Amino acid sequence: MSVYSVPSTSQPPHLAPLAPFDLVIFGGTGDLALRKLLPALFHRYADGQIVAAARIVGIARDERSDEAYRGKIREALIQFAGEQAQQTEVLDGFLALLSYRRLDLSSDSGWPEFAAEFTDAERVRVFYLAVGPDLFGVVSDRLQSHGLVNPKTRVVVEKPLGKDGISADAINDALARVFNETQIFRIDHYLGKETVQNLTALRFSNALFEPLWKAEHIDHVQITVAETVGVESRAPYYDKSGALRDMVQNHLLQLLCLVAMEPPSSLAADAIRDEKLKVLRALRPIENGNAAAFTVRGQYKAGAVEGRAVPGYAQELGAQSLTETFVALKAEVKNWRWAGVPFYLRTGKRLAERVSEIVVTFRQVPHSIFEGLTEQDPSSRLQPNKLVLRLQPDEGVKLWLMNKVPGPGGLRLRHVPLDMSFAAAFGGRQADAYERLLMDVVRGNPMLFMRRDEVDAAWKWIDPIRAAWAASAEAPRPYTAGSWGPSAAVALIERDGRTWHEDAG
Amino acid sequence: MSVYSVPSTSQPPHLAPLAPFDLVIFGGTGDLALRKLLPALFHRYADGQIVAAARIVGIARDERSDEAYRGKIREALIQFAGEQAQQTEVLDGFLALLSYRRLDLSSDSGWPEFAAEFTDAERVRVFYLAVGPDLFGVVSDRLQSHGLVNPKTRVVVEKPLGKDGISADAINDALARVFNETQIFRIDHYLGKETVQNLTALRFSNALFEPLWKAEHIDHVQITVAETVGVESRAPYYDKSGALRDMVQNHLLQLLCLVAMEPPSSLAADAIRDEKLKVLRALRPIENGNAAAFTVRGQYKAGAVEGRAVPGYAQELGAQSLTETFVALKAEVKNWRWAGVPFYLRTGKRLAERVSEIVVTFRQVPHSIFEGLTEQDPSSRLQPNKLVLRLQPDEGVKLWLMNKVPGPGGLRLRHVPLDMSFAAAFGGRQADAYERLLMDVVRGNPMLFMRRDEVDAAWKWIDPIRAAWAASAEAPRPYTAGSWGPSAAVALIERDGRTWHEDAG
Repeated sequence: MSVYSVPSTSQPPHLAPLAPFDLVIFGGTGDLALRKLLPALFHRYADGQIVAAARIVGIARDERSDEAYRGKIREALIQFAGEQAQQTEVLDGFLALLSYRRLDLSSDSGWPEFAAEFTDAERVRVFYLAVGPDLFGVVSDRLQSHGLVNPKTRVVVEKPLGKDGISADAINDALARVFNETQIFRIDHYLGKETVQNLTALRFSNALFEPLWKAEHIDHVQITVAETVGVESRAPYYDKSGALRDMVQNHLLQLLCLVAMEPPSSLAADAIRDEKLKVLRALRPIENGNAAAFTVRGQYKAGAVEGRAVPGYAQELGAQSLTETFVALKAEVKNWRWAGVPFYLRTGKRLAERVSEIVVTFRQVPHSIFEGLTEQDPSSRLQPNKLVLRLQPDEGVKLWLMNKVPGPGGLRLRHVPLDMSFAAAFGGRQADAYERLLMDVVRGNPMLFMRRDEVDAAWKWIDPIRAAWAASAEAPRPYTAGSWGPSAAVALIERDGRTWHEDAG
Repeated sequence: MSVYSVPSTSQPPHLAPLAPFDLVIFGGTGDLALRKLLPALFHRYADGQIVAAARIVGIARDERSDEAYRGKIREALIQFAGEQAQQTEVLDGFLALLSYRRLDLSSDSGWPEFAAEFTDAERVRVFYLAVGPDLFGVVSDRLQSHGLVNPKTRVVVEKPLGKDGISADAINDALARVFNETQIFRIDHYLGKETVQNLTALRFSNALFEPLWKAEHIDHVQITVAETVGVESRAPYYDKSGALRDMVQNHLLQLLCLVAMEPPSSLAADAIRDEKLKVLRALRPIENGNAAAFTVRGQYKAGAVEGRAVPGYAQELGAQSLTETFVALKAEVKNWRWAGVPFYLRTGKRLAERVSEIVVTFRQVPHSIFEGLTEQDPSSRLQPNKLVLRLQPDEGVKLWLMNKVPGPGGLRLRHVPLDMSFAAAFGGRQADAYERLLMDVVRGNPMLFMRRDEVDAAWKWIDPIRAAWAASAEAPRPYTAGSWGPSAAVALIERDGRTWHEDAG
C-alpha cells in the first residue's frame, strides 16, 4: 500500500486507483481551477482514485511559492469542496500532491527547468489549458519546443473553441500542429453529468426505449438550459459571444446529439462521436430565409430574480449592445428517424429559475377509450408521456405516465411522475461532472469529449444563424430579468400547439 | 342530507353515494358473505357510498331474528373488516341496513311475504347467489315466480360455473330462463383488483406501452397464482374440481385475456369483453397430442409451509386421488400480435409463497454496446426489461429496467425495479376487490364480469386438456408441500431457455 496510500477505505472496487500521473493546469489560480478542477481532483483523491505519487502543478504568471499555492488552494477547497474538505488529514494529503510554477507564456524563460521535471516517458502527462483560446497555440508550441509532448501527453481545452467556424479552425489547427487528434480532449462538462450518462445507459441497455425513440412515437423534444445569473462583471467578455455561441453551439447541441443519435455499434469513443456527428450534419439549416421563423433572440433588462432587484444587461455592460443573452430555436434533424419532430432549444441568463433539462414528449395515444371518463372527471384527461432528464440543479430522470388513481371508486387517471433515478437510493455526495471527465482524460477515454469534426459541424450550423441575425434589422427582444425570456419564445412553441415544459411534480 | 346520511365526511367527490338499493344475499350466513361480501359492503357504507335507505337482506335456511343476524354480522365485521369496524357508531349505522329472512329453496313457503317487501320497481334489486351452482336455477325460478324479477333486477353468481362446458351451459341456461344476459353478473374477484384495473389503465392511457405490446418486443408472459394454503376440510369438494377448473379456467385465463387483448374501441363492457373473447378463441388448443408437452399436473404431499409441518393432499382427503392441486401450462395466443410468445401459467396450493402476479418479460436488446463493460463487471450484465403486476399479497406494479449506477467511476449498470404504483403515496386502506365489484353491480356496470360466451370459450379450451389428462396413464406428479410444485413445472419453462420470475427487489 506504499504508493497507493488511499485515504478512504470505503471506495467501491470500480474506483481502482489510477497509475501515478502528472497534471499541469495552465491558469492554475483562475476561477475554473479554484472552483472546479482542483475540487474535482480533490474528491477523486479523497475517494482513493488519485494516489500520493501523482503530481498536480499549477501554472500562472506571478511569483509564488509551493507553500503559498497550497495555502490558496486549501482556502478554495474549504470553500468549494464541501464536507470532504473538512477532514484535515485528507486535505493535507491532497495538498502534498500540489506544486506551483511561474511560467511566462511569451518567453522561454523558466521552461527548460520546468521541462526537466518531466522525466518519466511512461507516465501520463496532462496539460489542462484553463486559459483563453488565443493562448492555446502559444502554450502548445512551447510544450512541444521544450520536449514535453510525447505519446503519453494529453491536452485539455475548454470552450469557447473560437467564435465561428473560421476561428475554431485556427485554434484547432494550432493544436493539431503539436498534438494528434487523439491527444486533444475538448471538454464540455455537460457531457460528464450523471443524467447525461444515464441517457445513454437508458437508451441502449433497455429494449423498452429504442423502439419508441423515433418520429412515429415522439412528438417533440425540448432542451432548456436556464440560468438565473446575469453576466455582471463578465459583460465585456460575454458581449463578444452571446448565448448562441456560449451555450447552444456546444452544450445544447451536444445534448441534442445524445438524444437524437442512432444506436452506436459500441461504446468506443469514435463509434459514439460518429453518430453525434451525423446528427449535427443532418440539422436543417437555419439561415436568412427561415431564421425569423425558427429563432428568437432576447436580452434581459432590469428586473428581479429570486426576489432581488437586478440591473439589465446594457447597464452591466455600460453600453447598448446587440448581443443576445437568450436564444430559443426550433431545430430539426432531417433523417428518417426524426423527420417532422421539432427539437426546441432555449437558453438564457437572468431567467426565472436555474434549470437544465431535456424533455422528450411522446405522442398522445392515437385513440382514447377513456373519453366518457374524462368528461365526468376532467383531471383524468390523458396527457402525453414524457421522459424528463434533469441535469441541474437536482440531477435525475423522471417518466411521466398516466396511472390509475387507487381506490374502489370509478376509474380515475392521473398524470404522475415516476422517478427513474436510483441515485437517491444510494445517497452520498453527487460527483461533479469534472471529476468523471478529468479521470477520463487520465485514463485516455475520449468518449465524452468533442472531436474536431463535431466542433466544425456545430459551427457550420451556427454561423448561418448569426449571419441571418446580422443581416436582420431587428435587435434582440428585451425581456425582464426573472422572466422566462421574451414572449416570442413562448410563441415559437405555442404556435405549433405545444408548450414549454414546467415540472409540476 | 336526510336520506344521504353519510357517516364519513371525508369521502372524495368521485365516491358519490349510490341511490338506495336492495341487496339480497342467498347464503347470507356463509363464509363468502361473512368474510368478503358484508365487510365489502360495510366499507362502502363507512366511506359514504351506501346510504342509510339501502337495504341488505341475508337469507339462509335456519330461523333467526334480524337482531341475531346483526349480532352475527357484527362479530364477523369486527373480525374481518379491520380498523373501520372498531368505530361503533359506523358499525351500528351499517347493521341497521341489515335484516334476515329464512327462506326454504325447496318450497314456496315464506316467499310471498318476502316478495311483498319489494314494492319499488324503480329501485335497483340485486340478488347475490352465494350458494352452490346447483341451486342457481332453483333460486332464479322462485325469484321469477314470485314476481321479484323486473328490469332493475340483477343477479350475481360466483364460480365455479360448472365443471365443464356442458354443465356450465346447463347453469347458464337456467339463469337465462329468468334473466337477460345483461342482468347476470358472473363475478371473478381477480378482475376487481386494483392492479388488474391498473393494467388496463397503463396499457391504454399511455402511448409508451402499446407499441411494445406484441411479439416483436415481448419475449414471454408469466401468470402465477400461488397459494400456501392447502385444501384441508374442503378436500371432498375440491377433489371434484382441481386446480385447472378451480383456478385456470376462470382467474388465470381472465388475467391472460387482459394482458393479451387488442385495444378495445371504448370502455363499454361489451367492447372489452368482445376483445377478451377473441383471445380465448385464439388460444392454441391443448389436447391429446400436445398435453404432455404443454401441461404439468401436480399434487402436494406432506411437507412444511412457512415453517409448519402440513399433511399431504391424500391425507387431507383420506383417500388416493388423481385430482391436481397444481398445474403449470404453456399457452399461446395464435394471432398476429402474439404469434410465438408463450404464456406460461401456473397455480397451486401448498406452494412456497402466497403470490399472484403477471410478469411481462420484454425481449433482450438486439445488440449490446456494453459488452466490454460486462466483462469487467459481470453485475452490469444486461437483463431484459420486465413489467411485474402483483395482485397479492401486496398489490403493485414494478418495471424492471437497466439503470446506470450513479457515481464518477466507469459506467456500471444494474437491473433495478421501478415502482410504478402510486398507491403508496396515497396511503390509507387498500380496498378489497369485492367493494368495487359489488358497487359495479349496483351501478349496473358489467365491465368486470364475465359474459356467457367468455365462460363457454374458456371451457372449450379447458375441456380437451382434462380429456387428454384422463386419457393419459400418468398421475399428477407429487410435490412437497412448501415447494414451487413438481420439478417438471420448472422444466416446462427452462427447456425454452426461460425461468420462472422470482422477485429479488
